[in-house]
Amino acid sequence: MIIDCHGHYTTAPAALAAWRERQIASLADPAAAPRREDLRITDDELRATIEPNQLRMMDERGIDVTVFSPRASFMAHHVGDFGVSAQWAAICNELCHRVARLYPGRFAPAAMLPQSPGVDPATCIPELVRCVEEYGFVAVNLNPDPSGGHWTAPPLADRSWYPLYEKLVEYDIPAMVHVSTSVNPAFHTTGAHYLNADTTAFMQLVQGDLFADFPTLRLVIPHGGGAVPYHWGRFRGLAMALGKPPLEEHVLGNVFFDTCVYHQSGIDLLVDVVPAKNILFASEMIGAVRDIDPCSGHHFDDTRRYVEAAKLPEADLAAIQEHNVRAVYPRLDALLRSQSRLSS
Amino acid sequence: MIIDCHGHYTTAPAALAAWRERQIASLADPAAAPRREDLRITDDELRATIEPNQLRMMDERGIDVTVFSPRASFMAHHVGDFGVSAQWAAICNELCHRVARLYPGRFAPAAMLPQSPGVDPATCIPELVRCVEEYGFVAVNLNPDPSGGHWTAPPLADRSWYPLYEKLVEYDIPAMVHVSTSVNPAFHTTGAHYLNADTTAFMQLVQGDLFADFPTLRLVIPHGGGAVPYHWGRFRGLAMALGKPPLEEHVLGNVFFDTCVYHQSGIDLLVDVVPAKNILFASEMIGAVRDIDPCSGHHFDDTRRYVEAAKLPEADLAAIQEHNVRAVYPRLDALLRSQSRLSS
Repeated sequence: MIIDCHGHYTTAPAALAAWRERQIASLADPAAAPRREDLRITDDELRATIEPNQLRMMDERGIDVTVFSPRASFMAHHVGDFGVSAQWAAICNELCHRVARLYPGRFAPAAMLPQSPGVDPATCIPELVRCVEEYGFVAVNLNPDPSGGHWTAPPLADRSWYPLYEKLVEYDIPAMVHVSTSVNPAFHTTGAHYLNADTTAFMQLVQGDLFADFPTLRLVIPHGGGAVPYHWGRFRGLAMALGKPPLEEHVLGNVFFDTCVYHQSGIDLLVDVVPAKNILFASEMIGAVRDIDPCSGHHFDDTRRYVEAAKLPEADLAAIQEHNVRAVYPRLDALLRSQSRLSS
Repeated sequence: MIIDCHGHYTTAPAALAAWRERQIASLADPAAAPRREDLRITDDELRATIEPNQLRMMDERGIDVTVFSPRASFMAHHVGDFGVSAQWAAICNELCHRVARLYPGRFAPAAMLPQSPGVDPATCIPELVRCVEEYGFVAVNLNPDPSGGHWTAPPLADRSWYPLYEKLVEYDIPAMVHVSTSVNPAFHTTGAHYLNADTTAFMQLVQGDLFADFPTLRLVIPHGGGAVPYHWGRFRGLAMALGKPPLEEHVLGNVFFDTCVYHQSGIDLLVDVVPAKNILFASEMIGAVRDIDPCSGHHFDDTRRYVEAAKLPEADLAAIQEHNVRAVYPRLDALLRSQSRLSS
């Protein structure tokens, strides 16, 4: 089985964006805000956005299951206040839940959180509880910069994040550390902000001692870890200079990198420097890079090709493509097992 | 000959830091500000900070020449106003000039600019003129984020930077795009901010069309290009999505990456994906990562080992270690040729 731990609902029906536009337009006039029930999307409309897109490409590429969360760049936690984010997160999460329910065994839902700049992360817990307990979500996306490129939030090892981590640990679900759109003109969203956030988050974890307090917390750094594996020597040296244990002891019991790296040399480096147990298969399809690479004739984001060409021992390949994801996302593992029993 | 295009005066005499502390302490009371002539450092004091440090390690590693600029993390353009930066840049640049004069053929000076957040970059031109015309500097460091991690400056393709580019083109000198210390607690200076800035700057150049306006401008992205080579496929795909020409045409006539990547796999990837003509040898010694790698028994920042072990064709190795730097830094080439004539 091949599990892609990083997919977003980037193809949601246009009605969703229209609802969001109405919500944003009403920021200055809350009485004009759309209600959640104003958004009406039928199951057929959902199918029409999934079957010719993510599901078709999963079938073409041989991806069995995708961990599926709301579109990352649309989370836009910088917009409005907590109430605005709470409404928006509830709607987006519900759509991912419905997609997962329509295609059991093919999509497993992961939640966006209703974060808002300067607001206590603990306010996100009710939505997290709802998604896990009512909908059976298997993971969440945690935005280390709800300001959208102004980086006003404290580092991830700060105690203000702890209530959220406590809940993640209680539910035994991982968080993917994933920013949203950049409203800072210095940062292109998918070409700079995403990768910078990955690098920044990892270094925050190296500087801190978060996993001494949360030994079972698991964080996934997407996009192959940003700049981290390419600069593995720098990070090893910086950990030494900071008086931290080696990265293997200090963070690699809890931190995992996905394989959203869109060329062969990058994947080769990733599997060369990062232990196989810390790598999770992913492609972020359909995402930031949708074209076919004219050099290879295949989609840039068809990462299965690179991972399978990386000359990995068979056990490592199976770990990366399936077993690690099941171990890091135990509720996904349980979901897949229950679905498999139902279908057999 | 081996030329290291990226060294900073990280070991300057303590009197320099003491002068800076007085300057910072006087921000609220300008009458108490130290004068430039209050800083007194003898040639012997300079020698005592260079000979057992940079020069010793250059000799041990077989580095002939280093392009030598003020300590990057100490530029701290966010401190005070333009006047404060102007005094500080003048002092720091003069010390690099003196080091270069003490060791002809071993150090060539590069300038920091007196940037200040929100201040027109054109205000830096007088210091640039002074450094090139009076001191014979061969390059400058350009900070894309003078705010120190708040990223309030416009992208590098913005026209506000153009007066500076015009002067660089007139003098035919390159700029290394190098940030300074981060005062944003989200970003560790050398573990996140430096790498993020490299990635950010490259993506700004991909988004823009700067080199249509400045076809001979040359920018060096340090630290191996941040996350860029590791994500080369992503950047190629994003350029396509933005309707830009291939990276080779769009930016690689003008953008160069240094080799400050502190492990073998990283350098292997760099030379695999980036054309040899766009790679410049560098180590940033003595810099962010000073320890010996317990796995190799050698310094993390001894990049010559990695570059020479990267199985490059001989001509590519010579290009990276010498000829590319001479081509990108023609005033360095001229300086070395004149020094060689004098000594022969």
